[in-house]
Amino acid sequence: MTQKTAEMLQTVQQTLTTAQKYEHACHVLNFDLETICPPKAMEQQGDLIAYLSNEGFKLKKDPAFIEAGEYLYAHRDELEEADAVLARQLHREYLHTKNITPEKMHSFSTVMNRAYVRWIEAKQASDFSLFAPSLREVLAVNREEVSLREPEDPSAPAASVYDQLLDDYERGITTEDLDALFGACKERLLPLMKQILASPKKIRTDFLSRKVTDEAQERMARYLLDVLQYDLQRGAFTTTEHPFTDWMAPNDVRITTHYHEDAFASSMYSIIHETGHALFEMLQPKEDWEHFIDSGKTMAMHESVSRFYENRIGRSEAFVHRIYPGVCEIFPEVMRDVSERELYEALNVVQPSLIRTEADEFTYTFHIIIRYEIEKALVSGEASIDDVPRLWNEKYREYLGIEPENDRTGCLQDVHWSSGFGYFPTYAVGNMYNAMYYNRLKNELDLDQVVASGDFAALNGWMAENIFRRANRLAPHEWIREITGRELTADDFLDYLETKYRDLYEI
Amino acid sequence: MTQKTAEMLQTVQQTLTTAQKYEHACHVLNFDLETICPPKAMEQQGDLIAYLSNEGFKLKKDPAFIEAGEYLYAHRDELEEADAVLARQLHREYLHTKNITPEKMHSFSTVMNRAYVRWIEAKQASDFSLFAPSLREVLAVNREEVSLREPEDPSAPAASVYDQLLDDYERGITTEDLDALFGACKERLLPLMKQILASPKKIRTDFLSRKVTDEAQERMARYLLDVLQYDLQRGAFTTTEHPFTDWMAPNDVRITTHYHEDAFASSMYSIIHETGHALFEMLQPKEDWEHFIDSGKTMAMHESVSRFYENRIGRSEAFVHRIYPGVCEIFPEVMRDVSERELYEALNVVQPSLIRTEADEFTYTFHIIIRYEIEKALVSGEASIDDVPRLWNEKYREYLGIEPENDRTGCLQDVHWSSGFGYFPTYAVGNMYNAMYYNRLKNELDLDQVVASGDFAALNGWMAENIFRRANRLAPHEWIREITGRELTADDFLDYLETKYRDLYEI
Repeated sequence: MTQKTAEMLQTVQQTLTTAQKYEHACHVLNFDLETICPPKAMEQQGDLIAYLSNEGFKLKKDPAFIEAGEYLYAHRDELEEADAVLARQLHREYLHTKNITPEKMHSFSTVMNRAYVRWIEAKQASDFSLFAPSLREVLAVNREEVSLREPEDPSAPAASVYDQLLDDYERGITTEDLDALFGACKERLLPLMKQILASPKKIRTDFLSRKVTDEAQERMARYLLDVLQYDLQRGAFTTTEHPFTDWMAPNDVRITTHYHEDAFASSMYSIIHETGHALFEMLQPKEDWEHFIDSGKTMAMHESVSRFYENRIGRSEAFVHRIYPGVCEIFPEVMRDVSERELYEALNVVQPSLIRTEADEFTYTFHIIIRYEIEKALVSGEASIDDVPRLWNEKYREYLGIEPENDRTGCLQDVHWSSGFGYFPTYAVGNMYNAMYYNRLKNELDLDQVVASGDFAALNGWMAENIFRRANRLAPHEWIREITGRELTADDFLDYLETKYRDLYEI
Repeated sequence: MTQKTAEMLQTVQQTLTTAQKYEHACHVLNFDLETICPPKAMEQQGDLIAYLSNEGFKLKKDPAFIEAGEYLYAHRDELEEADAVLARQLHREYLHTKNITPEKMHSFSTVMNRAYVRWIEAKQASDFSLFAPSLREVLAVNREEVSLREPEDPSAPAASVYDQLLDDYERGITTEDLDALFGACKERLLPLMKQILASPKKIRTDFLSRKVTDEAQERMARYLLDVLQYDLQRGAFTTTEHPFTDWMAPNDVRITTHYHEDAFASSMYSIIHETGHALFEMLQPKEDWEHFIDSGKTMAMHESVSRFYENRIGRSEAFVHRIYPGVCEIFPEVMRDVSERELYEALNVVQPSLIRTEADEFTYTFHIIIRYEIEKALVSGEASIDDVPRLWNEKYREYLGIEPENDRTGCLQDVHWSSGFGYFPTYAVGNMYNAMYYNRLKNELDLDQVVASGDFAALNGWMAENIFRRANRLAPHEWIREITGRELTADDFLDYLETKYRDLYEI
């Protein structure tokens, strides 16, 4: 590395050290906003977050910083890997934001923050029309923001707005890719779902709605966190209506859950899902934070891990065997007449339902396909915001044979659109990724034995070494190829579902 | 107002609008730190708060801001009242900090933030020696910070370090004042305590330690918040080991409580106490925030209100009458054989005890006197940090006839010293204030009727109009004189205790 490169690197690091503080503060303020901030204070706190976020953004508009970042990008061959990754990330960020002033960025954030508050109000009132004006603004912001970007490769044909939004959450993925992947899912899963629903196999689920107090569910949550080895010295845990994970700093990764009196499994599997996210952040290489590349991982990578823990591990026979005694001890009334096999089957029952986060592993993909098709149409202009409730209900009828009775359990159920479009497909792509790496993992680890015996250190260690270690440094297609030697495909996921559910339903 | 004054006012307002954002963020981050931040992330989050707080401080070091503030102070006769109050506050702040660089201020904050983390660790280990090095640093910071101040009145003799610290929390009060006030307390309360403890009157307290689940206590907490008319749209409520109130913004005032399985009354009275603080912030004039003078009120004013609600209202016969049916409904097992009179008496029993926050109204003042005498000796240099545990235990023996068995229930019980000395006396002075204004209130409102009927809007309205409205604008001695026509005295408080407890103990 030349003297000049070293100096430029130092300039960049100094600015990012400060910018990281603003981001850290915004994460905590946002966690507070979503967990405890009083309703009438949310708008002001949203504005505060927008302000601080913009102060961080301004730091990155400093010409000396931009010059240093671009210099590093041009000389990235001289840099060690982590810094070269940073240089690429900064270059991309620079192109995306060079035409956006801090004032413009602030106005974007304000729209998103307000939309979040309006969404809460609209959902409470179960009235999409209260949210529609905000959602229209969000869409306008998404479009404007994309229109202001400089292309990474000026010689390539311009990508559509929706493709660029998809790229924000999963670099490199396109509508074309998703149409093919989801096409394969529909082709194989729709007929299989019919067979499953027509199967004479009876799965007992009566006990899933037996009443459990919040206190017992909280004990269960802590039991599961302990089983999975989530470190409460470095993480926090609380309740919110919508479970989520947020990462503030290397020693601060927080998860939330909710308790429904008559649906104890809902909290259990939200805990396992969020713990997956948390483990990814906690067990990534420490130096990634120090090199400012800890958010290099994509959201589909993230969802691959959370859904790996939730479904591939959490709903497996081995895991149910591991926790069965704990469940019986913590919920004795619920479990008074339930065998281990009955618990396993109930946790895997296929049942079309309205709420994505409560959906079973099999029908889940359709919840994503519905959202994907709607947002693709919205962003392209084929559909308008006002069409959302109608489209939503039609598609639920079409794919799942059921229809929401109101907006709260329909198109207002998810928070995501209040901050823009393009996120939902990452859940489904995550399922495809984890099915692919599961097929490697099962050859390298005696997974059933590890899970059934509760040796989560071995499992988490394998994930850290093989899945987390390079996630911040590689593009998604490089990452999955490095792990599996193959390109993204839906096949592993579909094979897995087919085998598992044919076995379970004896079809 | 001249054109120039208007311009200067605008300059000041612009800077303070931004500084207020940093303060708001720091309040939220601090609330997070005290409620949910994971242990291993606390130090980093403390550093983040110090950083942002210092960014706010830097804004106030801008020469244009200082010039404008000083100009306004010199021309405060031209300003409307709120702005004149602001000019006085800015002038005082300027004198206090003009010799303190942002770097120095940052080093001060870092010491305090680290001390907070060390205190938590030391308290957990019940070992004062783990906290002593930090406490020594805190004392050094207190001394250095005071030594750097410019006097408000250069012709007056220099105040002692401890007097200057007292002045931070209760403007104008001195060691001389407190020696006299506490002397009066000791003179009247010590002999009375002997009589009370020797009295043959039997007060039943067995049911106070009957076990109550967290869930039932949470229901009770929400019941009390509702009775007192704490607005959950503008306030939040959660649990922490050490109950406190924090105010972030006009629509964001948060309180916390704790639940002890075998001491339900502890949570009840911490809720009432913190709700007092919260009502003060919620019901102060809205324009005080807009004029940046909302923190003009002193801590003794604040404690006067919290302890007014806790003791003068909360432990009165009328209040016990109001809540007795609710307590019976929420804690049926506890209350199965307890009459309203028995509940009232138990909530007022006099019993020397180790923990300040759990102390009865009568012995409470001695907890404060003990802390006052120790911190006065520490700051003056008469005692050293290493003497604290010994002094603490001796004084508990001397005043209350009991001695802690360990540091956790002794000198490590309170968080306050981790951020400096001089706060504790405000609790006792607060009791004296509220006894004084109670004597006016009882002539203007049929308090027993209002409380027993649950018409808290009338009570809170009286407080807002008479106690809160001018609190940010007046010095404490002006404030209490305006409310009561008299100077601060311990007499009303001592008369009240004497009457109440002679009656209760039939002596």
